[in-house]
Amino acid sequence: MRDAYHEELEALSDSLVEMTRLVGSAINRASTALQDADLTLAESVIAADDAVDALRDELDRRAFDLLARQQPVATDLRIVVTSMRMSSDLERMGDLARHIAKVARLRYPDSAVPPALSAHILQMGQIAERIVAKAGSVIASMDTTAALSLEQDDDAMDELHRQLFDAILHDKTDLPRETLVDLTLLGRYYERFADHAVSVAQRVVYLVTGEYRSELDLPELDHEEQEDSRVAL
Amino acid sequence: MRDAYHEELEALSDSLVEMTRLVGSAINRASTALQDADLTLAESVIAADDAVDALRDELDRRAFDLLARQQPVATDLRIVVTSMRMSSDLERMGDLARHIAKVARLRYPDSAVPPALSAHILQMGQIAERIVAKAGSVIASMDTTAALSLEQDDDAMDELHRQLFDAILHDKTDLPRETLVDLTLLGRYYERFADHAVSVAQRVVYLVTGEYRSELDLPELDHEEQEDSRVAL
Repeated sequence: MRDAYHEELEALSDSLVEMTRLVGSAINRASTALQDADLTLAESVIAADDAVDALRDELDRRAFDLLARQQPVATDLRIVVTSMRMSSDLERMGDLARHIAKVARLRYPDSAVPPALSAHILQMGQIAERIVAKAGSVIASMDTTAALSLEQDDDAMDELHRQLFDAILHDKTDLPRETLVDLTLLGRYYERFADHAVSVAQRVVYLVTGEYRSELDLPELDHEEQEDSRVAL
Repeated sequence: MRDAYHEELEALSDSLVEMTRLVGSAINRASTALQDADLTLAESVIAADDAVDALRDELDRRAFDLLARQQPVATDLRIVVTSMRMSSDLERMGDLARHIAKVARLRYPDSAVPPALSAHILQMGQIAERIVAKAGSVIASMDTTAALSLEQDDDAMDELHRQLFDAILHDKTDLPRETLVDLTLLGRYYERFADHAVSVAQRVVYLVTGEYRSELDLPELDHEEQEDSRVAL
């Protein structure tokens, strides 16, 4: 039987998985609200982000209390510190889902996404949903192979992001300026969402392997590098 | 005379101040590169971001080692945990300065910013530079009044961000699509830069007052809320 201390450590992981569920639901519903110009759904995503923030706050408080009371070392210390970092990534992913919902709300009753790009944005939403679900599985299973597979989803997201900008810049139809601004921001929101999911997965790899470089080489920079793009992402 | 342990704690603060200096230099030079379409300067900002990342890595490693070896509690523990969070904010600010430099590089030999909006973007750059300098002073002085004053700079940045979008959407001249995309992203980069500086300052307030709510009510969300804007920021 586990002692209370180890149960508390495991509870951090459970809370992180729960955050991935909430964030996965948020990005799913935000994407649907965007596609369908569904104001009620958009509003519900915006309101639900408070629950993600509250879960992050509570997790961080528990992690801090564990540090103060139990003074963990070695692997346990890594778990606590890394959990706080993952909660921060997941909280930010919640914000990004909310931003997407706000674009949907702002353009209601119109759709923010022009019909010609609807399938493209839908695909970005599907990858976002898949990558956060995978991040949740990786936290629960500590499977480092699965963790590394998130980078392929992220590559697919980056490619869609590049294609979106090509479409924005070269589309022959007369896109209103608001639409150009919306698409620019939406592309960035989805792409950053995937970056943070990769960051979560890489932190799991660090936890399992204990390699300090994995901890330090966070993916943020590399995944934002898209030198061959027509826009500076 | 301070013992080695307390010297290590103080060294965390020194490293954070040093990070604000590097990031301040980066945003200053990125803004100049953008205004002057200066490729060499843009390249130097992009290359220099590695030094910010290295400083963050080293600071995080030292903070982690302090947790493992000294098992700090109470205020000392808060200092260590909060330092790791501030290093993360500052590292991200470095990324954002680099993103701005990359916009300048991408459009060289042209300027990414049309003449009519040059003064406006310049002003955003000046506020960004001021706010990171203030963040550095706040870390060094632990002055909570000064910390709170960063929010006024951030409000000014938000207002400029709103005005930028108004200008983008209503400008009568024929702005190329690339320019619309660049301005959308530049506005967001500057605005996020200021958000992270406010976050750093609020973490100092938490350190000094020890109020847990200050720690948890991070500014990110509030400062991204701009409900009256014409675009969903």
